[in-house]
Amino acid sequence: MKPHQLVLLAASCCSVLLASVAMAMQASPPKEASPIYGVTLPDGYRQWQLIAPAQEGAPLNELRAVLGNRTAIKAYQSGAQPFPDGTVLVKLAWKHEQSPEFESASIPGDATTVQVMVKDAKKYASTGGWGYGRFVRGKPADEAQHKTCFACHEARAKARDYVFTRYAP
Amino acid sequence: MKPHQLVLLAASCCSVLLASVAMAMQASPPKEASPIYGVTLPDGYRQWQLIAPAQEGAPLNELRAVLGNRTAIKAYQSGAQPFPDGTVLVKLAWKHEQSPEFESASIPGDATTVQVMVKDAKKYASTGGWGYGRFVRGKPADEAQHKTCFACHEARAKARDYVFTRYAP
Repeated sequence: MKPHQLVLLAASCCSVLLASVAMAMQASPPKEASPIYGVTLPDGYRQWQLIAPAQEGAPLNELRAVLGNRTAIKAYQSGAQPFPDGTVLVKLAWKHEQSPEFESASIPGDATTVQVMVKDAKKYASTGGWGYGRFVRGKPADEAQHKTCFACHEARAKARDYVFTRYAP
Repeated sequence: MKPHQLVLLAASCCSVLLASVAMAMQASPPKEASPIYGVTLPDGYRQWQLIAPAQEGAPLNELRAVLGNRTAIKAYQSGAQPFPDGTVLVKLAWKHEQSPEFESASIPGDATTVQVMVKDAKKYASTGGWGYGRFVRGKPADEAQHKTCFACHEARAKARDYVFTRYAP
């Protein structure tokens, strides 16, 4: 191989490498973490198993579904509490919308929030072992909103390891 | 080994075998198929991915969740219709019940029905390529109920390959 061929080869390798790096950066933009807790949206949560749906009346008027990672599902199935470290629960919420096909049915409209609870008994010792994240279109809500998470879970669900959602059979 | 020992050994082997058969039968009782369509409850459907929750008003007052097997999820993601053979959709339904922790929230109460749609364009050619099953506590509903499935899906959702549920983002 002649010198100018080597240069061409090196240049072509470099551009392939740079293109790969650019694609990788595009595929996984840096995730924004919630204030106070540093919780991010977990990878692939939309594929997680359903724990239960729910409906929220006025003024929010939402349909919701809580999904859990494998650790969460195992904990629900065994009934063991508190939930072990590594448990992650994700609540998806959508506007409650009239079905176009059925007068009596309501279906998900626009997505509103995605809310995350992550169990880490040491890291989140001061908030019952749970870290919280509330996201709107992938962006975390502000610190003021995150200050309300633990207060409400503590007031209403402390006896159930701060978790509202029961597994739907 | 003496003859009476052989008889004892054979008897003990038989009882172990019979016990295993009994346990196997208990673990997987024969599944009952729906009338007209011969559809059964698919294995492991409760672990399938969520397509969307829904709410059904009076008189049923139910919370619902539609789950899909991998073929179903792929078809939803690609947007390709009609759904390919092997698509299975399962709708779980529960009574709509007041949350004990939140005045504004409703959660799943008792399970009411599990409804299944199976795509097989040839087998179910006369009903739009879909077979239907409606189950109450694991038992298929009667033939009269199954006669209503296709009529309603045809009247209201034919343009969407007879499927009501849209994927919730």
